[in-house]
Amino acid sequence: MTSWRKLGVIAGGGELPVILAEHCAAQSAPYFIARIEPYADPALDAHPGVTHGLGLMGARMQALRDAGCDAVAILGQVPRPDVSKLQLDEVAIAMAPAVLAAARQGDDALLRALVSEHEKAGFRVIGVEEAMQGLLAPDGVWGKVTPSDRQMNDLKKAAKLAAAVGAWDVGQGVVVCDGLVLAVEAQEGTDAMLRRVAELPETVRGSAQARRGVLVKRPKPIQERRIDLPTIGVRTIEGAAAAGLAGIAVEAGAALALRREEIVAVADRAGIFVYGFSAAETDAA
Amino acid sequence: MTSWRKLGVIAGGGELPVILAEHCAAQSAPYFIARIEPYADPALDAHPGVTHGLGLMGARMQALRDAGCDAVAILGQVPRPDVSKLQLDEVAIAMAPAVLAAARQGDDALLRALVSEHEKAGFRVIGVEEAMQGLLAPDGVWGKVTPSDRQMNDLKKAAKLAAAVGAWDVGQGVVVCDGLVLAVEAQEGTDAMLRRVAELPETVRGSAQARRGVLVKRPKPIQERRIDLPTIGVRTIEGAAAAGLAGIAVEAGAALALRREEIVAVADRAGIFVYGFSAAETDAA
Repeated sequence: MTSWRKLGVIAGGGELPVILAEHCAAQSAPYFIARIEPYADPALDAHPGVTHGLGLMGARMQALRDAGCDAVAILGQVPRPDVSKLQLDEVAIAMAPAVLAAARQGDDALLRALVSEHEKAGFRVIGVEEAMQGLLAPDGVWGKVTPSDRQMNDLKKAAKLAAAVGAWDVGQGVVVCDGLVLAVEAQEGTDAMLRRVAELPETVRGSAQARRGVLVKRPKPIQERRIDLPTIGVRTIEGAAAAGLAGIAVEAGAALALRREEIVAVADRAGIFVYGFSAAETDAA
Repeated sequence: MTSWRKLGVIAGGGELPVILAEHCAAQSAPYFIARIEPYADPALDAHPGVTHGLGLMGARMQALRDAGCDAVAILGQVPRPDVSKLQLDEVAIAMAPAVLAAARQGDDALLRALVSEHEKAGFRVIGVEEAMQGLLAPDGVWGKVTPSDRQMNDLKKAAKLAAAVGAWDVGQGVVVCDGLVLAVEAQEGTDAMLRRVAELPETVRGSAQARRGVLVKRPKPIQERRIDLPTIGVRTIEGAAAAGLAGIAVEAGAALALRREEIVAVADRAGIFVYGFSAAETDAA
């Protein structure tokens, strides 16, 4: 499985790169962090690595090579940059036409182009879950709360719609409440979508007293699964709780759960379910 | 065409019922307004009519019958109510199971059920555009600004995605900017969606200085077209302008434009296009 010598972690923002770095350190697995400034978490400075701006693709790849990395994981959040203000090195300029053309199609197309460029440069590109298997979303009910039949119906509708919308390289999340589609995620991201649900009239959504509705996140059907798998963390649970939702569901084996024990603890406390579904379970007519 | 004797206007909120009432008065066409309180605009009080709460379906239908109405138009905005707090008369209670079951499926299903109940009660249900033909969105470019090829590509992608999402009885609007889907409308409505686009990073959207991206509104493929046709007004143009969009497009003959002259004047001033497309133009591969 782990058929690489040393893992390069190309790290954008958020806690996922930190979790992976801490995991590698704890396992004494050889690793090296290529921090993308200004996005990478400062906690990564404590790990072996190097820091570059997003556009210094050649310098970053050379540093990874010099450090002996044969595989890379690309992870963490990077907002779409203003390319005209980005400092680009020669390698970045050479790959710019392909990457920019892909960026126009959607986030998945963009990430696919970046994977391809790293492969052309000789790196094996792995999904973060290959380096840290505990991240992958498990099957079934995660905590103490079990979805009701009605909530399972919302879950199935949201899962089907997320797949339909995902085919357009749009978002990964959908909220359905008692059959009604409350929100569809696009560029704003899951947290902003949940805030929007919390602002809808209480007649169409649930509340802390009477939880209703389900958030589903799942990969786009077309998605390059080695990067940008749908991710949930404690903040997702908190957002869902504030929006009055009854639960959250992700596709088992096709989503990442950051600090799963904390996720379950917070969800149990809020009285909301967390569920890993299989496509076979949701996509039948 | 106008094969009814007297038109009953069942009026929710917003300016559309006011525009229709003023049109009927100006044309000396027989009409009667059934105002739904507390949503109907107070300007409607100046017109012949009656006022009921949403749940007094029987009283409202009887008042329309007593006034001699043989046809009704159902229009204006009504938020989904808290049914447990709604005052219901006997007729409303009788139709409640069918209406509530439909409400769970989506807005179109709900409105379809309401149309059906009014037809069962003996009314002909007409679309507002049958009573006021100038409301329907015309073909082609409306003002001084013409979409570029790039903007037409955004328009086509947004139109196709709006149809795909609409098939799920979700929203009517989509925003695409340089190929990237920025936002998909669900229960929040078009104005809230445009505010969200305005809050996205400027790297993915346009600005007043360099307008990019297109809002498309079109009916759901399954939609009961006699009610709830996609509607744009001056506020839609203002929202699109604030979001940095290059233009707005609706399906010609399948959307309503409120105060079209003002729409065009505001759009011309902001430098954004307004365009009526045909399905043949956008839906080809």
